[in-house]
Amino acid sequence: MELFHSRDIEGNICRLDHDESGHCIKVLRHRCGDEISVIDGAGTLYHCRITSDSHKGVEAVVLSKEESWGSHPYHLHMAVCPTKNNDRYEWFAEKACETGFDRLSPIIGEHSERKVLKTERVGKVLVSAAKQSLKAAVPEIDEPVSVKEFIKSHCDTEVLRLIAYCFEDERVPRRSIKEVLDGYEGREIIVMIGPEGDFSKAEAELALENGFIPVHLGSSRLRTETAALTAVSAAYFRYM
Amino acid sequence: MELFHSRDIEGNICRLDHDESGHCIKVLRHRCGDEISVIDGAGTLYHCRITSDSHKGVEAVVLSKEESWGSHPYHLHMAVCPTKNNDRYEWFAEKACETGFDRLSPIIGEHSERKVLKTERVGKVLVSAAKQSLKAAVPEIDEPVSVKEFIKSHCDTEVLRLIAYCFEDERVPRRSIKEVLDGYEGREIIVMIGPEGDFSKAEAELALENGFIPVHLGSSRLRTETAALTAVSAAYFRYM
Repeated sequence: MELFHSRDIEGNICRLDHDESGHCIKVLRHRCGDEISVIDGAGTLYHCRITSDSHKGVEAVVLSKEESWGSHPYHLHMAVCPTKNNDRYEWFAEKACETGFDRLSPIIGEHSERKVLKTERVGKVLVSAAKQSLKAAVPEIDEPVSVKEFIKSHCDTEVLRLIAYCFEDERVPRRSIKEVLDGYEGREIIVMIGPEGDFSKAEAELALENGFIPVHLGSSRLRTETAALTAVSAAYFRYM
Repeated sequence: MELFHSRDIEGNICRLDHDESGHCIKVLRHRCGDEISVIDGAGTLYHCRITSDSHKGVEAVVLSKEESWGSHPYHLHMAVCPTKNNDRYEWFAEKACETGFDRLSPIIGEHSERKVLKTERVGKVLVSAAKQSLKAAVPEIDEPVSVKEFIKSHCDTEVLRLIAYCFEDERVPRRSIKEVLDGYEGREIIVMIGPEGDFSKAEAELALENGFIPVHLGSSRLRTETAALTAVSAAYFRYM
């Protein structure tokens, strides 16, 4: 199934941007009258008929729509430190999107070796993964913030907020993510995953003070991107 | 922690091969008397002292050993069709090793676009991932066989044998992998994952005749390598 992505759907008129129009007209050779399927990135699939077949800007009329198309029964916000190697972060974004998540916040920790991340490329990976895995919602990608800023700006106590760090703190023993998810009745989850060098003690402390629950991801020693995907799988299986 | 890999440990003498010796002596500049840690790939970690520091063949004496080092509480054999893009298969091998699995059989299905796989490269990825994730056991990699051969040669009814295909067959409804794993008391599991074009009806039929249980991996549409890793995560969480 071939899908297009548009952020410009108003009433029953859908417009494709320059890239999507080029792909639609030049590569796939669609013409006026052809039917195409378009996701809006916000969860709705539109069945449309092309009314203007310019390769610079396709216009189409909406015939019907399906809401929550390819959706999952939870809202998962992953806050993940960038990996040293960018490909590994993009790989995570692709796989997490296929599996099912909703929002990605790159967070910069005190031990992060990589302090910057270009979100534009990750955003493209997410659009492409959403199309490929037949989901009408594309996960949001935020601009990077520090771990401490992230913690302070996410204090909604209705949301299950988890932080996965690797060191042991005797005062607050970590429980397995599976156990914590199984005991949670809601559907709104935030998971923080640290950089190669782990979260700092100060970051972990701040998270706990702000109501984050410390979790571990089992006994295996996982790379940052594998840990992050494992947390996505944990949520996926919890609501399966 | 820096680990070496050796398949040549006899009594209390451990020898590194050409590549590992070069890395040990030329890159890390170890010398006689230095202590090194060596995995045998079969589950045991050896603490050794170097007695001969040739960069072509290091020899070391075993000081102590730890069995089942970095092991997991199940035996998981993944039979996965090669992906069109080799990188995706290697990526799966790396991530599955980090998470925890024991054996990889590349299987060639009737709908497989890729009919060959060089197992040597995958084997190297597995050794490297085992070292990186601090596991003394390196998953085995088999030579490719056809899906039908694989099914016929794996008829041990003590083992939980699963096949994940994507089509619906009304006569034998698929259950979720999570539900089937939760109901299984043993620890020996085989999971078959098909190619981009799915298993053929004939392959699925043969699997069912031979006692394989049909499962699905949830409602998301996953690429071959993501499906395979999701199955590994399912086992990992089952025994967490």
